[in-house]
Amino acid sequence: MFSFFKKNRHHPITVFVNNIFGVLPNNIIWYELALTHKSASIYQNKDYSINNERLEFLGDAVLNTIIADYLFLHYVNENEGFLTNLRSKVVNRSTLNEIANQLEIQKIIKHHCDFSDNSSSNIYGNALEALIGAIFIDKGYKVAKKVILKKIIAPYINWESLIQHDTNYKGQIIDWAQKHHRHIEFISKSDTLQNNQQGYSTELIIEEKVWGTGEGVTKKEAEQQASKNALHWLEQSK
Amino acid sequence: MFSFFKKNRHHPITVFVNNIFGVLPNNIIWYELALTHKSASIYQNKDYSINNERLEFLGDAVLNTIIADYLFLHYVNENEGFLTNLRSKVVNRSTLNEIANQLEIQKIIKHHCDFSDNSSSNIYGNALEALIGAIFIDKGYKVAKKVILKKIIAPYINWESLIQHDTNYKGQIIDWAQKHHRHIEFISKSDTLQNNQQGYSTELIIEEKVWGTGEGVTKKEAEQQASKNALHWLEQSK
Repeated sequence: MFSFFKKNRHHPITVFVNNIFGVLPNNIIWYELALTHKSASIYQNKDYSINNERLEFLGDAVLNTIIADYLFLHYVNENEGFLTNLRSKVVNRSTLNEIANQLEIQKIIKHHCDFSDNSSSNIYGNALEALIGAIFIDKGYKVAKKVILKKIIAPYINWESLIQHDTNYKGQIIDWAQKHHRHIEFISKSDTLQNNQQGYSTELIIEEKVWGTGEGVTKKEAEQQASKNALHWLEQSK
Repeated sequence: MFSFFKKNRHHPITVFVNNIFGVLPNNIIWYELALTHKSASIYQNKDYSINNERLEFLGDAVLNTIIADYLFLHYVNENEGFLTNLRSKVVNRSTLNEIANQLEIQKIIKHHCDFSDNSSSNIYGNALEALIGAIFIDKGYKVAKKVILKKIIAPYINWESLIQHDTNYKGQIIDWAQKHHRHIEFISKSDTLQNNQQGYSTELIIEEKVWGTGEGVTKKEAEQQASKNALHWLEQSK
């Protein structure tokens, strides 16, 4: 084992893993795989490609557990709606892409395409998830948790700021409804919007009463707007 | 610590945990909490209830990771679409409810409602997830993984049978598209069905061509039917 490290400690992937996670790999192959986009699969045939997609599947689950574990122990007086909402602000494409950029994953990832178009903008965030899968399979849950919280979460995530600047209105209203034991329902339908564009309109129903309405090009937008209106109404009625 | 076990080894919760997981609790409070439905919260005020919902949030993430971990190491030649699809057959309400029934969680869970109606049929599956959260927080990932695979997965889940009898047609077609690097899209709209009921119709588009159509009372049903038709067409064209 010692000779392995001695031989490989200057390998670019070992240096990179040590820089971003502060640990030396036991088995460098996992990290190499995590940094291999499908466009540069090591081996490829019609049924199976050796690239980072399997590790991304694993890393996504592991990151969700590490954050759930942290929030569960850290916010002991908050309910599961609060925890779910807070986690979703970290475990999403745009946050992961942003952290991946800060970690300069783009400098080391192997790929064979032009990624200047938007469709492939998630490859760095996906590679970050795959790296989390790699450290989990290489070092186990305990080390992975310690490293991810110290090197990925603490430097880039400000929990208090996320709590204060909550723009996930749907999350907030669901959270409110859970706290107050109210039944909440979103009814969305395809609709022509005020600007004549095709989209969706949503009614937010709490116990048979419409508390907010919204419209948007996507159902998600319409639901967010209906939730924002309902929250505004709630605020007024306090 | 020894005196704690000595005192509590005949406690009904200790006996139950030992029966279903084959381990003795370090801290019985987590399992007691996991078996407390919100209708029987130990302590309740308008902002915060002490019940199993926070542990269910944690247990859901942990179970997803344990299954991902197992499938990643067990099916080394399958892609992430296969792994995602296979996991979704285990980590869903109906499978968890079924396992919870076999474990007779209904005999020990604390609740104060009549659960004969369908709306609350998930409480046993949810409590199983909370128990998984409890064993994770009490014993750590390594023990939780070992126990869940041995006592919850191995006796109740037949992976080979799940693979052979795949009724998740949407999962299969997404899997196929990922394997063959095709772009796939489901377009659903509200529609009046052939039997005049209100519902949804779905077109399954692969690279600008309609490969299957379906209809159903829910969007999910319509998508499944469209996927089944597309798979049938694919089978014919082989």
